[in-house]
Amino acid sequence: MLRRIEADVRPQIGAGQVAAYIPALSCVDPNRFGMAIADLDGKVYGVGDWRQPFSTQSITKVFALALALAQGGDDLWERVGREPSGNPFNSLVQLEYENGIPRNPFINAGALVVTDRLQTLTGDASSELLEFLRQESGNPDVTFDPEVAASESDHGDRNAALAHFMASYGNIANPIPALLDHYFWQCSIEMNCADLALATRFLARHGLRADGTRLLPRRLAKQINAVMLTCGTYDAAGEFAYRVGLPGKSGVGGGIVAVVPGVCTVCVWSPGLDPQGNSVAGIAALDRFTTLTGLSVF
Amino acid sequence: MLRRIEADVRPQIGAGQVAAYIPALSCVDPNRFGMAIADLDGKVYGVGDWRQPFSTQSITKVFALALALAQGGDDLWERVGREPSGNPFNSLVQLEYENGIPRNPFINAGALVVTDRLQTLTGDASSELLEFLRQESGNPDVTFDPEVAASESDHGDRNAALAHFMASYGNIANPIPALLDHYFWQCSIEMNCADLALATRFLARHGLRADGTRLLPRRLAKQINAVMLTCGTYDAAGEFAYRVGLPGKSGVGGGIVAVVPGVCTVCVWSPGLDPQGNSVAGIAALDRFTTLTGLSVF
Amino acid sequence: MLRRIEADVRPQIGAGQVAAYIPALSCVDPNRFGMAIADLDGKVYGVGDWRQPFSTQSITKVFALALALAQGGDDLWERVGREPSGNPFNSLVQLEYENGIPRNPFINAGALVVTDRLQTLTGDASSELLEFLRQESGNPDVTFDPEVAASESDHGDRNAALAHFMASYGNIANPIPALLDHYFWQCSIEMNCADLALATRFLARHGLRADGTRLLPRRLAKQINAVMLTCGTYDAAGEFAYRVGLPGKSGVGGGIVAVVPGVCTVCVWSPGLDPQGNSVAGIAALDRFTTLTGLSVF
Amino acid sequence: MLRRIEADVRPQIGAGQVAAYIPALSCVDPNRFGMAIADLDGKVYGVGDWRQPFSTQSITKVFALALALAQGGDDLWERVGREPSGNPFNSLVQLEYENGIPRNPFINAGALVVTDRLQTLTGDASSELLEFLRQESGNPDVTFDPEVAASESDHGDRNAALAHFMASYGNIANPIPALLDHYFWQCSIEMNCADLALATRFLARHGLRADGTRLLPRRLAKQINAVMLTCGTYDAAGEFAYRVGLPGKSGVGGGIVAVVPGVCTVCVWSPGLDPQGNSVAGIAALDRFTTLTGLSVF
Repeated sequence: MLRRIEADVRPQIGAGQVAAYIPALSCVDPNRFGMAIADLDGKVYGVGDWRQPFSTQSITKVFALALALAQGGDDLWERVGREPSGNPFNSLVQLEYENGIPRNPFINAGALVVTDRLQTLTGDASSELLEFLRQESGNPDVTFDPEVAASESDHGDRNAALAHFMASYGNIANPIPALLDHYFWQCSIEMNCADLALATRFLARHGLRADGTRLLPRRLAKQINAVMLTCGTYDAAGEFAYRVGLPGKSGVGGGIVAVVPGVCTVCVWSPGLDPQGNSVAGIAALDRFTTLTGLSVF
Repeated sequence: MLRRIEADVRPQIGAGQVAAYIPALSCVDPNRFGMAIADLDGKVYGVGDWRQPFSTQSITKVFALALALAQGGDDLWERVGREPSGNPFNSLVQLEYENGIPRNPFINAGALVVTDRLQTLTGDASSELLEFLRQESGNPDVTFDPEVAASESDHGDRNAALAHFMASYGNIANPIPALLDHYFWQCSIEMNCADLALATRFLARHGLRADGTRLLPRRLAKQINAVMLTCGTYDAAGEFAYRVGLPGKSGVGGGIVAVVPGVCTVCVWSPGLDPQGNSVAGIAALDRFTTLTGLSVF
Repeated sequence: MLRRIEADVRPQIGAGQVAAYIPALSCVDPNRFGMAIADLDGKVYGVGDWRQPFSTQSITKVFALALALAQGGDDLWERVGREPSGNPFNSLVQLEYENGIPRNPFINAGALVVTDRLQTLTGDASSELLEFLRQESGNPDVTFDPEVAASESDHGDRNAALAHFMASYGNIANPIPALLDHYFWQCSIEMNCADLALATRFLARHGLRADGTRLLPRRLAKQINAVMLTCGTYDAAGEFAYRVGLPGKSGVGGGIVAVVPGVCTVCVWSPGLDPQGNSVAGIAALDRFTTLTGLSVF
Repeated sequence: MLRRIEADVRPQIGAGQVAAYIPALSCVDPNRFGMAIADLDGKVYGVGDWRQPFSTQSITKVFALALALAQGGDDLWERVGREPSGNPFNSLVQLEYENGIPRNPFINAGALVVTDRLQTLTGDASSELLEFLRQESGNPDVTFDPEVAASESDHGDRNAALAHFMASYGNIANPIPALLDHYFWQCSIEMNCADLALATRFLARHGLRADGTRLLPRRLAKQINAVMLTCGTYDAAGEFAYRVGLPGKSGVGGGIVAVVPGVCTVCVWSPGLDPQGNSVAGIAALDRFTTLTGLSVF
């Protein structure tokens, strides 16, 4: 089936624009395509460049959210909402009208609040996240890309603006330069499709980690899936629900993870992005996946 | 189970505010509560005031959308989006920034476009809708409430503004006074929980009507469910997905319908509304329903 | 001096775009240019097409405001503000954030409130206005252009939206279709530069009409000049103050009136508009006028 | 006349709220009132607390603008607009919609751009400004208040957000921490009414400094007056033009300077602010001043 999907979406591989907002991302080959499926027991099936590491970017926001909820519980929701944004993912407008409370944990402002919370809870947000991803993927080579982190930092004025703006409303607890560093490191983590499909499994397993211990209560795991469905693909969450019908989270590196609760996880990667910042071939592949399997939640 | 849910949510029945924007709605007893579940074969189970008709209001937007798609197909999506609004349900702001294309078919502006489309397709949008609801519910007494329709019309300046505003972008095809009449009639339809649960069944049956004929292709039925999940409860769709985890559509009359794809439909009614315009006890009851049954899509 | 100004601005005559939002305006020759100066005693000096009638459009908003204040006094300011808009002249966004109170009487929404007030005060707003303009200009041939009025009405959805939207906040007192008719008639009045310079004289004469009777107390005449300076040229009022430095009011027919308090009035006309809707050659001519004479208020 | 004005506005002295956004300002006695008039030759007349230093705050934005234009010319206008903002003085919304170009040099974002420009031109923006104010006022004791500067810095997250946000659009040239320091020092300068009236004289003298040398060409001096009239009093510039009718600039320390071109300058101080951030008694006093003298520009 993965080979059939790859064949079906071949015309769209290379379409769209590779992310160019930082130099470190702009030189990726737009013709790459990989896809991996992990079942509940950790067996992985892949096609194409599914073993090729890429920059996870915003996909790591899901794992940071899970860790912050696992360690700190529902208090987080007093500082960040759970509603779709209806605006581009780094908008200040809405933040101003809503007194420094970001709409959801997957827009940049909300992810900064999550990282700030995780930093308070753990003292080292980005290391905690990296360790989690290594354990869940079973791949000890998962690591930061210092070049990407530095490039993010060099072009980080908008995230700095978001952090200072929320701080002016009392919604940031840690010093902003350190917070931004953790945030940029978090965005720079490199993983491949297999790693990401495996690391996302706890959401298909209703909160159980790879080693069988419980990360999150069943309720919270379902709720993260709900937030992914309504908010996980920037300003195109409605379109993603409409076409794919699964909880998913995309990154401007071209990756997308999706969850079929109780069944499996999927990760697809192709660097060409649509105007909303989601992988063109990636969404097409997930669309084919749910069409062929009937595995949409709807 | 329905009796247990009713007992669990009893403290919240009467909480919130009865809709007061038109006089005809403001005199409803806030202590009413009814709930009904319809299985795929049309067997209905109910509790409380599940046989008491109430004003469906925005819930009918789902049926108007289904009819417009059934009769006219995907062309509709060139005139209305599928993204959550991130703004109150009758906002003009977003409409202005997006050149007269409403964000989704469930905000008022989008529903006006759907009604306009259905009017063009059928020549009599509100009668077409009424006939459909009578057939699907099996209740020939389903009808308009002329007092509510007149009251809507008397307080209809904001909807008139929306219609004229979209017309200025070329996104309204029919004469506005007639369009508004059809829209207000559509909002005024009275049904009870059993009627609504039955009428919604085609969405749990992947497009099949009560008589077994096909209203919509499987794909479109799933897609309507997706739009309900991301956009069905005004500016609280994220919260609804988070707490309830089902496609749902609410109305300011206090009713909510929800769909468990492939399993059943649910309708709950209680007139007290939260600040977002959704029934307080209704959401609590659906929250209990998915918690007790595990039937969330996540 | 007028001939020198005409020579200086000649390169800009024909620049910009003739207003195209209604067919009746789009066929005007873009190469027309006229300018007239009226002293306090009613002596008029002109150059170019200063005797050629053109569509006054928004310029009449000044006269409607003066009549509404003259007959009804300061109560008007409870329904419309006096602040620059910072937004395009027909924006609904700001109206929504400010509960149906338009920012100033010169944006379309504010002018609709003024016309609504004048209609309540006089029973026939547009005839009252026409009569006033005939008397002040001394030209009994000043009249409506029915073709322009009909064209405005045919393309009047946005103004209808504004009126209904304000009505939803209780800020419109008269029936909307009649109000819109008066508004469109008001916009359709044809005058030439001499007529307009003469008709504006009461603002340079601190409230005294052509016949020496008092239209407005000195205080109100000064205040209308203040509102013209801060709000009279759509979203370019700051630029107009910066370049010209006089109270002024423009119309999309290409006319601009300006007031030198205690000295004279000026009217210039040339149909090519800049992106803000102000006459390109008109602003250039007024810029030259204040530079040559030193008559800026600053 | 100054004594008469003081008597007339006595009921309003103490009205409004003293600025409380930084601790260093919140302890000022709300019952202070001072007013000074400086003629073109530098003779000063005063009443009340006209010799009492207060925190100039945003009033210094006028002088920073004049110095940046004097030394760098019109290039500044490519980086900052000249239009009233129509929004609160520290809004990010508008900045986002206009790609990092602030609407005018008197909102905080615009003043940051001006200070950034002055820093590039002089290498030490705040010292340059202080030296200018000492020379024009003839008072070598004019100085920074380090407690206010530190307090501004401690509560400077919103200004930091504005600076980073503009930097993300390429509209800030200097390192942001140093820029913010200069900006906060600039806001902390203490002066009395006599100092400020004298220092503002170059705007009444069409660009001539106290020592008779030319700071600005006549044109630029007039244009600064125009920007003050349309943008000088936060979101109440229209109201200020309407009531006072003079170019003016206010600060949240309770001071306001106003210019009567070719005649004199006025400075008034009283710490109680209206909701827009302007001195209540200060505006009332200027209103009386123009009413009694007829010196409004209109």
